[in-house]
Amino acid sequence: MRNIKIEIEYDGTNYCGWQIQQNGITVQAEIMKALKKLTGKEIMVHGSGRTDSGVHAKGQVANFILENGIPTERILAALNGKLPGDIAVIDAAEVPMNFHAQHSAVAKRYVYHIYESKYRSAFLENYSYHVYYKLDHGKMKEAAEMLIGTHDFKAFMASGSDVKDTVRTVYESDIENRDKSLYIYIKGDGFLYNMVRIIVGTLVEIGSGRMQTGRINELFETGERSKAGHTAPPQGLFLDKVYYP
Amino acid sequence: MRNIKIEIEYDGTNYCGWQIQQNGITVQAEIMKALKKLTGKEIMVHGSGRTDSGVHAKGQVANFILENGIPTERILAALNGKLPGDIAVIDAAEVPMNFHAQHSAVAKRYVYHIYESKYRSAFLENYSYHVYYKLDHGKMKEAAEMLIGTHDFKAFMASGSDVKDTVRTVYESDIENRDKSLYIYIKGDGFLYNMVRIIVGTLVEIGSGRMQTGRINELFETGERSKAGHTAPPQGLFLDKVYYP
Repeated sequence: MRNIKIEIEYDGTNYCGWQIQQNGITVQAEIMKALKKLTGKEIMVHGSGRTDSGVHAKGQVANFILENGIPTERILAALNGKLPGDIAVIDAAEVPMNFHAQHSAVAKRYVYHIYESKYRSAFLENYSYHVYYKLDHGKMKEAAEMLIGTHDFKAFMASGSDVKDTVRTVYESDIENRDKSLYIYIKGDGFLYNMVRIIVGTLVEIGSGRMQTGRINELFETGERSKAGHTAPPQGLFLDKVYYP
Repeated sequence: MRNIKIEIEYDGTNYCGWQIQQNGITVQAEIMKALKKLTGKEIMVHGSGRTDSGVHAKGQVANFILENGIPTERILAALNGKLPGDIAVIDAAEVPMNFHAQHSAVAKRYVYHIYESKYRSAFLENYSYHVYYKLDHGKMKEAAEMLIGTHDFKAFMASGSDVKDTVRTVYESDIENRDKSLYIYIKGDGFLYNMVRIIVGTLVEIGSGRMQTGRINELFETGERSKAGHTAPPQGLFLDKVYYP
């Protein structure tokens, strides 16, 4: 019996998110289907956390207990052989039995891709948030840096979410501009529901001049969702990396 | 009556190539459909040349004669509003009546994307040629440079093609490596059927050691298609730019 940790890349365009559900195909279900084809058994796959419909991953992590004799070094290629083209296992390794992709995770990093152009791109429709007006990158960077540290992120949580403890620590929050693309990187110890997408929506409001950078502190103080920006669309979001001790 | 030149970006994944045909959706047909929605008329759109099924474009060029009063500066946004998300007009301008996207073109540039990695990517399946073994970039670069100049490219033409004059001039032929991606750039005054894809297939054979760089000269001398490499798959090919005087 081995505990196998896998790192997974997926294009979320055609999936109803990560988590298995009754209706609609999901990434978790596809990986479990592939494992069943390989081993003949129903094996539970534990992900580091959910991703929403249309959200992508460059480094989602999951683990599962394997009783089958397939050598660890062959798992990666064997799984990829059974998975659809838009899901790829990029690493597989045996880990101690107490490792759990979700409970052992200490931090996560997301990248959000904004395509800043007067006109849309034929290639980025499913992989970016198209903002057709100019954004003030300097102000957005200033606001992004204000997020770093331990704060109450209640205002950046989707309304209706019932999490009690809304204090999180953001380790990294930065913006990088390449050509017409703007990449927002956020690393933290944990994320509330829709937190990254609301942060991005708020940064876009600040970059467009509809909100001031001072709004960030106001949001930390009041915790009012309605004072934060819109929820940026899912297709610009990529789960980049999950960190373990 | 105005002659309008448009520059078009498209993701060729879901199209049977550029050229209008009886069965299957094509990029040319989609643009003509969009023009019909805008003007109510059947307007012929002339492209700089065909692209095959699955091939992409970053800068395809086309032109059409417009009798409708729609202002030139509004054509771009109006067309994009009627086109599917994987086709985008990125420039539109009025040109002299004697301009023809195909006949006026003096050169074209293609980019071919090879993804060089032991394992496949979840994002690049439709946008690259996955080569899962290591390639010798130095040898490929050497061979690519041998293509520059005026040569008989008969050996690099799909068999069955009936073009008589197979002499073409290649102005630029280079390779660039970024992370796991290898970009092959080829600019020439004209291209034979499948010429870029056969060039790429031959460069891959040379990069893998199955052919020597000297093979290029042999191909120019013998003109034998069977001595060249395989035809690289369509999804790695991008029509990058069309040049006019």
